[in-house]
Amino acid sequence: MLRFENDYSEGTYPEILARLAATNLDQAPTYGTDPWCEKAREQMLALCGLSGEEAHVHFVPGGTLTNLTLLSAAMRPHQGVIAAVSGHIATHESGAIEATGHKVLTILSSDGKLSAGAITGYMDNFLSDETREHQVHPAMVYISDLTEMGTTYTRAELYAIAEVCRTYHLRLFLDGARLGYSLCAADSDKSLVDVAACCDAFTFGGTKIGALFGEALVLRDPTLQAEFRTILKQKGGLLAKGRLLGIQFVTLLTDELYRTYCTHANEMAERLREAVRLSGYEFLTDTTGNQLFPILPNSLLAELEQQFTFSSWEKVDVDRTAVRFCTSWATREEDVETLSEAILRGKKVHA
Amino acid sequence: MLRFENDYSEGTYPEILARLAATNLDQAPTYGTDPWCEKAREQMLALCGLSGEEAHVHFVPGGTLTNLTLLSAAMRPHQGVIAAVSGHIATHESGAIEATGHKVLTILSSDGKLSAGAITGYMDNFLSDETREHQVHPAMVYISDLTEMGTTYTRAELYAIAEVCRTYHLRLFLDGARLGYSLCAADSDKSLVDVAACCDAFTFGGTKIGALFGEALVLRDPTLQAEFRTILKQKGGLLAKGRLLGIQFVTLLTDELYRTYCTHANEMAERLREAVRLSGYEFLTDTTGNQLFPILPNSLLAELEQQFTFSSWEKVDVDRTAVRFCTSWATREEDVETLSEAILRGKKVHA
Amino acid sequence: MLRFENDYSEGTYPEILARLAATNLDQAPTYGTDPWCEKAREQMLALCGLSGEEAHVHFVPGGTLTNLTLLSAAMRPHQGVIAAVSGHIATHESGAIEATGHKVLTILSSDGKLSAGAITGYMDNFLSDETREHQVHPAMVYISDLTEMGTTYTRAELYAIAEVCRTYHLRLFLDGARLGYSLCAADSDKSLVDVAACCDAFTFGGTKIGALFGEALVLRDPTLQAEFRTILKQKGGLLAKGRLLGIQFVTLLTDELYRTYCTHANEMAERLREAVRLSGYEFLTDTTGNQLFPILPNSLLAELEQQFTFSSWEKVDVDRTAVRFCTSWATREEDVETLSEAILRGKKVHA
Amino acid sequence: MLRFENDYSEGTYPEILARLAATNLDQAPTYGTDPWCEKAREQMLALCGLSGEEAHVHFVPGGTLTNLTLLSAAMRPHQGVIAAVSGHIATHESGAIEATGHKVLTILSSDGKLSAGAITGYMDNFLSDETREHQVHPAMVYISDLTEMGTTYTRAELYAIAEVCRTYHLRLFLDGARLGYSLCAADSDKSLVDVAACCDAFTFGGTKIGALFGEALVLRDPTLQAEFRTILKQKGGLLAKGRLLGIQFVTLLTDELYRTYCTHANEMAERLREAVRLSGYEFLTDTTGNQLFPILPNSLLAELEQQFTFSSWEKVDVDRTAVRFCTSWATREEDVETLSEAILRGKKVHA
Repeated sequence: MLRFENDYSEGTYPEILARLAATNLDQAPTYGTDPWCEKAREQMLALCGLSGEEAHVHFVPGGTLTNLTLLSAAMRPHQGVIAAVSGHIATHESGAIEATGHKVLTILSSDGKLSAGAITGYMDNFLSDETREHQVHPAMVYISDLTEMGTTYTRAELYAIAEVCRTYHLRLFLDGARLGYSLCAADSDKSLVDVAACCDAFTFGGTKIGALFGEALVLRDPTLQAEFRTILKQKGGLLAKGRLLGIQFVTLLTDELYRTYCTHANEMAERLREAVRLSGYEFLTDTTGNQLFPILPNSLLAELEQQFTFSSWEKVDVDRTAVRFCTSWATREEDVETLSEAILRGKKVHA
Repeated sequence: MLRFENDYSEGTYPEILARLAATNLDQAPTYGTDPWCEKAREQMLALCGLSGEEAHVHFVPGGTLTNLTLLSAAMRPHQGVIAAVSGHIATHESGAIEATGHKVLTILSSDGKLSAGAITGYMDNFLSDETREHQVHPAMVYISDLTEMGTTYTRAELYAIAEVCRTYHLRLFLDGARLGYSLCAADSDKSLVDVAACCDAFTFGGTKIGALFGEALVLRDPTLQAEFRTILKQKGGLLAKGRLLGIQFVTLLTDELYRTYCTHANEMAERLREAVRLSGYEFLTDTTGNQLFPILPNSLLAELEQQFTFSSWEKVDVDRTAVRFCTSWATREEDVETLSEAILRGKKVHA
Repeated sequence: MLRFENDYSEGTYPEILARLAATNLDQAPTYGTDPWCEKAREQMLALCGLSGEEAHVHFVPGGTLTNLTLLSAAMRPHQGVIAAVSGHIATHESGAIEATGHKVLTILSSDGKLSAGAITGYMDNFLSDETREHQVHPAMVYISDLTEMGTTYTRAELYAIAEVCRTYHLRLFLDGARLGYSLCAADSDKSLVDVAACCDAFTFGGTKIGALFGEALVLRDPTLQAEFRTILKQKGGLLAKGRLLGIQFVTLLTDELYRTYCTHANEMAERLREAVRLSGYEFLTDTTGNQLFPILPNSLLAELEQQFTFSSWEKVDVDRTAVRFCTSWATREEDVETLSEAILRGKKVHA
Repeated sequence: MLRFENDYSEGTYPEILARLAATNLDQAPTYGTDPWCEKAREQMLALCGLSGEEAHVHFVPGGTLTNLTLLSAAMRPHQGVIAAVSGHIATHESGAIEATGHKVLTILSSDGKLSAGAITGYMDNFLSDETREHQVHPAMVYISDLTEMGTTYTRAELYAIAEVCRTYHLRLFLDGARLGYSLCAADSDKSLVDVAACCDAFTFGGTKIGALFGEALVLRDPTLQAEFRTILKQKGGLLAKGRLLGIQFVTLLTDELYRTYCTHANEMAERLREAVRLSGYEFLTDTTGNQLFPILPNSLLAELEQQFTFSSWEKVDVDRTAVRFCTSWATREEDVETLSEAILRGKKVHA
């Protein structure tokens, strides 16, 4: 089986394995106070154009853990977080945010993105509602980039959302589990400096761009920083051997190594998109990162499933289904070729 | 101002006041172990056609408190409750259910009701979703009767929902904050025996049908009964002078006194509906209980607001708004006349 | 049976019943926005020597509900509340505070009181602990007055605690479920002005001093005030017919009517204490309010149980048990005489 | 600096690094469904003498995460967990258990252990308390082995606790963050079969015995198994690249490799104990695992701090402090020699 169902089916960059081995017997302080974490924090802040006074950086083992810890730390009991209806926290975290006591307030979206206008509409509606005292109060906005539909935010869209958030006193949190792919997308016009300028908090994910595990969480809002480590400990997110996260992020960030691998994954995805386009099939959403959502005939899919793994996404009509193909840092050109050919060949058979 | 904005703007039945006075100096055990609570429990069970082995009855000060205690007692951490998108727990309890750690899973509904078919569709979709292991698991169904849109469930609809819940191993909870009005509606074909037969748990609300405060909670499911009083205490719902609830419910239930008052309220609402019909205005939903949701011209509403209070519900178009008029046990015929005339008179002016 | 087991075995002051009856048909706004609540708030603030800018007043149906709502509103996830090991929140609220996510941090105390010194010791210990980053952070201090052991705080003790709380950035919350009895104790040297000056938040309880139900919650800390009503709604503490609370507190507070009843209860308790002293029995704690904790021979207790109800508190040795007798606004002199005589008579028999 | 402050200051066994490298490019299913996890589960069950029908095994990134997920999955809202006052969940998890809504009920213990007798006493006291309906209900017992004081349970003690738990319908959970050291202690008389026979759930920790990170959680109680993965996801404990945990535990468990490393650590600790004994210093507790708690003169400690890191544990008197030295899989004999000599040398100077 050739796996295209996600970007975390393999291990990690050889450079990360090598550094883990090289440092294995070094003794170091624990819980994220080791020199590698310190170094990775500095690198992260530098890439964001921030000083250590302006932001704190924490490294957390996983994405759901980061989301629930951050949102729980940031909200009072009556507050909730706005997300697209397809947002990861709204759908695929088993109610992690609700388990910390907070409602996820959803806005309809066909491409996984929230727009400044949609947030404005939501807030105007809330603020004009006479019964709002008996409702959950929106306090944060959650966006993801890549979104769960593979789409990205432009620089302008991001600044527009940040502006709306300021207007309505909403904190902006960006879930960057796949931010690396977004920053390296062929059509990307934004940098980490932009992300940091717009968001009160955001993550730069490691797991899905090729680390073994781990997310970097950048906290700009000073009220989020206070005692964050204690809250992280409470949620189970303070890793004893924090060095593991430091070592990985130092490797990812030194000379922006992650760009090499994310760009590779994006290019592999683009080749698959080419094959789909050549075959004349449509896409569910337009994407430029490491994911594509082609709408393919069920008969072709039945064939592909013999040789490839991928995710079934949405039944489009009786005959066609949107699926997700996902590439990674480790995706091999020859496997992409094999899949491309299978799609092109399939076109001839499955009108 | 004549108040038609809700059914809890006045005090309580004179019979309740009288019994409170008559028993005032009697000493009694506390926290719901007094003789009045015992008596009211027996009466409630008798009306439901149940024995004390089959169900437990608790009296709780308020509706939100009852909902959050029951749902919290009934669910494990990964479980959620299905409700109509307009369900009280989904909209107007400030996130009370989420604050206990559980997600409210909503189904679209235009009239405030859930149908057996809609629940089936929801569950089939969930069960066929490959990613359901990462999702909140539906464990209960929440319906309200009267619904938040003033509508009621027929006997057949209730049994159909109960059947679907059994099929999918969902517990059924009916929020009966206004169940009295529903049972006394002119077109009602169901009794407390039906409600008790269909639901794993349900409330028979006191506050909104004329008690000072309090809801009777009937628990059929034995696993919900165990230690429920301790969970109720934990949520702040175990009233020290529990006698107050016992005394009120004994009064409401003896000879089904509540029927007299609920029927009065329903009749008052029907007179208002007549006036609306005569005027040719439409309704947002068809109702037969103590609420009506006419769609009226904004210009007429501006006039009515000078003399009456009522709730603005939904903007229907630029010129018209759906509003809610609500009657109560204490609504006076002359006030209903005054409002009816204002509507009829308004018709002539505000085409 | 003559009941001395608690102070909530009867109904309420006749003045409260009368006012409920007199206002029964008045229509009023709901959820605490009625004129009686407004009036009671003004009265409460006036008694505290506060303006409406300095504090907010809320009326809540019950004590546990008030405690859990206030503490939940006041703390961030990693924070906990310090209480005496006998504090109500630590023992008899079924884990209500933990259910909102917060640990109750206990300090040993033999008389139910916390001292400024004990709090200082606790905090110095915490702040010098190298592992405190992995511990719950003390953020509030909870005291009750009357304490659960019937004791009271002097004015000086209260100001000393407030000073310590300021030093260590702890908010001070006083649970005044029985504050009325404390203020009216024969040896009391403090007033509501003192309580309000010392506490960031405190309650003035109604239920246990003779209301049907309800606590007044005074919030001085502005950060506690914001959106408190929404949090109260979320916890189920926003009463639909809030008028019930307003009417009761207006009655209690007008001309400080509660003083008449609390003083009566205190005097009845003092007569019982006299009988115990005359009999030569000891007390578990020295009290001046409406409770006494005599240490009596088990053989005498077996006799008393035939005629009186009271609470067994603590086994002192093989032969003796500390019990609690409690008087109320409604305790009759003749019943106190009967119990006093039984104690005195018992002394002769049960050396 | 030579580090003796904990057992997680280094990386991991070379065998683990090697296997991570060897499997790095293998594509595998995610979230713990990979072949290594499957294999490690089988190995774990075999060592426990259990079949897959009798127990489930999950791999979780960290200890706090495991504790909070398990306890949250196992308890209803009104229930709490009994632990020694020094238990990790009671002291050093920042209120993780309370954050899921449950109280930790503590029992005094001087050596970190709970005894069958102490649990019996606690339960008898609870069950005879007339007010228990208003209290948190003990539902589980939490023990750790090694305890937080470095002590271990004998086989007989473990079976006695299990017996008491059955009697009182308490589930038994053993936190085995350092179970490896306990099983390999020179005086150990118990095996994983015993642990599995006694506990409803227990962990076999990886992090502290030399894995990079990760705990194996064994669930015997079938009611804990249902939907556990969804609850784990909710708490953030379902690792995307679950293979990392599978690969590590396969390595640890194959031929019980962990025994080699744990035995080494225990022997290194024993040499340090020898030096302490030879010097005539006392211990705070008697231990046989990888930790020792000598009581040393503050003047000697001041010297040691120049060259070694270790944990200050408890001030014993004005002149002496109990400290913790901890060895690990990676502790070098020469470093142990250096520390031993420093202690012996110190003895001559610091009477």
